[in-house]
Amino acid sequence: MKLQEFATLMRPSIEEVLKQAVNRAPDQRLAPFYGWLTYHMGWEEEGAGVQAQGKRIRPLMVLLCCLAADGEWQPALPAAAAVELVHNFSLIHDDVEDQGEMRHGRPTVWVKAGTAQAINAGDLLFTLAQNAVLGLKDTINAQVACEAAFVLNRACQRLTEGQYLDLSYEKMNDLPLDAYFPMVNGKTASLLSACAELGAVCAQVSPQRREAFTRFGNRLGMAFQAVDDWLGIWGDAALVGKSVESDLLSKKKTLPVLFGLQQKGKFADQWRRAVAINPDDVPHLAKLLVEEGAQDFTVREADRLTDEALSALKEACPRESDASLALLELANALLRRDK
Amino acid sequence: MKLQEFATLMRPSIEEVLKQAVNRAPDQRLAPFYGWLTYHMGWEEEGAGVQAQGKRIRPLMVLLCCLAADGEWQPALPAAAAVELVHNFSLIHDDVEDQGEMRHGRPTVWVKAGTAQAINAGDLLFTLAQNAVLGLKDTINAQVACEAAFVLNRACQRLTEGQYLDLSYEKMNDLPLDAYFPMVNGKTASLLSACAELGAVCAQVSPQRREAFTRFGNRLGMAFQAVDDWLGIWGDAALVGKSVESDLLSKKKTLPVLFGLQQKGKFADQWRRAVAINPDDVPHLAKLLVEEGAQDFTVREADRLTDEALSALKEACPRESDASLALLELANALLRRDK
Repeated sequence: MKLQEFATLMRPSIEEVLKQAVNRAPDQRLAPFYGWLTYHMGWEEEGAGVQAQGKRIRPLMVLLCCLAADGEWQPALPAAAAVELVHNFSLIHDDVEDQGEMRHGRPTVWVKAGTAQAINAGDLLFTLAQNAVLGLKDTINAQVACEAAFVLNRACQRLTEGQYLDLSYEKMNDLPLDAYFPMVNGKTASLLSACAELGAVCAQVSPQRREAFTRFGNRLGMAFQAVDDWLGIWGDAALVGKSVESDLLSKKKTLPVLFGLQQKGKFADQWRRAVAINPDDVPHLAKLLVEEGAQDFTVREADRLTDEALSALKEACPRESDASLALLELANALLRRDK
Repeated sequence: MKLQEFATLMRPSIEEVLKQAVNRAPDQRLAPFYGWLTYHMGWEEEGAGVQAQGKRIRPLMVLLCCLAADGEWQPALPAAAAVELVHNFSLIHDDVEDQGEMRHGRPTVWVKAGTAQAINAGDLLFTLAQNAVLGLKDTINAQVACEAAFVLNRACQRLTEGQYLDLSYEKMNDLPLDAYFPMVNGKTASLLSACAELGAVCAQVSPQRREAFTRFGNRLGMAFQAVDDWLGIWGDAALVGKSVESDLLSKKKTLPVLFGLQQKGKFADQWRRAVAINPDDVPHLAKLLVEEGAQDFTVREADRLTDEALSALKEACPRESDASLALLELANALLRRDK
């Protein structure tokens, strides 16, 4: 079975467990409150559908890792749902914090509900995520449920830490290159690392094997972010397309930018002098970064992290299986994107 | 042993477990982030101390209920800490949502950290609360830890629901009396009810006895709110003191106000006509409420709920003990306040 077949097989169950976790308005009076969650999850109202729901990559990763660790995937569904709910809770709050008005082409929750209710709706979703993971008590046992809840909470803790760093970096003009990794570790890698670890926890593997799965998820997340950072400057949308799509325009502190600043060359000069970046200057700045080695550096980092991810996967799954091959395919799909 | 002696005995352990749960900044870079939490908990910075910490009534209630249910209190400490952390997480977010600038006489977290970081700091505290309750795995067992986490999460769910109702009521001018109870159930009673239930869960009592404890906490919370609503209009601070302290001035939808609105008399007329209440009109409005029976009604409701709380306590603790007497004392202290 290949990745796409696994996805087709598992998706209906994932969606069902997610809906069971979220559709819980105890009475009619609370229907609008829970309605913001079913809207955000992409199930209801304008623009509902697969596009708004996203690919549910995180739950898929939990289930595939569980299978690849020689477990059964169905009992791991509560963990898979919990990770997706945590991801979505953090999106609702991030959108409030960054004042982001659109997500998946639809207005964000705070735009519809106001800031106060959006914070509150995010809190509700976080609570429902916590409940979901404890469902492992019934599908596996209480020991595994507690362990999985710890793993999920560690990821939540890292998520908030990453967000703290991200928000505080916005205000700093100068930032050393090594400030990048703890931020990305928290914002992107923590949850993917939890996905892989949860799969291993549900399959009840040895501590060594569990560590290898966790490392696979972590490096995959870090590599994913490095690729994302590359695309944010040199991807089609950012460079050939409209400069509005470029991370340079929003002055985002991505890996190539932090490398560029560290060179203290022409790029750093122009970046520091500009209060805001002019869209017309974007291609020139992107070119300066290439000349000063930031593009090469970013590619090298992405390759290094990808290699580490794949060798961790090999360590976690010494025997090839349909599931381990599908994980390899998933990693490749995440890391070799074109847009 | 009396309530005060129990409080003196237990307080250092409560504070210690709380600190263990919160003091977890993994590196120096994150110290300011965790610093907002230690500030909020009343341990650090300006105004730190017992005054800022509050009375820690919720953890005390968990531990006393556990004792009164014939359990030992020390193993229940993780649950006691978790409830207090959930309470404080909800305060941090409530302050953002209501734009409250002061709490316990000190600036609130969002005033110090900004809205975005305060939302994020609340999320961190919520996560740490979840971790804390799972600590029961080590002090009791995994089964109890899962059960306690479910109880805590149900309370969190009710809390967010109560806050949803509270926020939506602000915008409504007319509200039936029966809209009051679901809101207060969520905002005040859910956490006190969880305290009592957690004590019972940690003591591993029968389902019937656990239900009686839960009902005790719930009715205590409801009665507490009715008394609070009474004090908000006819208490010394509200009436004899400055009218600024009166709930009438802030147009809060409390029990006497909703009763008054339902009478469709002079109070309802004046309340509906006023866009804002003038401080000079507060004594007159309070008098109208008395004449129209709202004060009597509020006292009757508070008495009824208090009776229900005390008979639930008796059902939960058929044999008197130091702990059950201390709970009685705690209930009386909460319900017979003067200010």
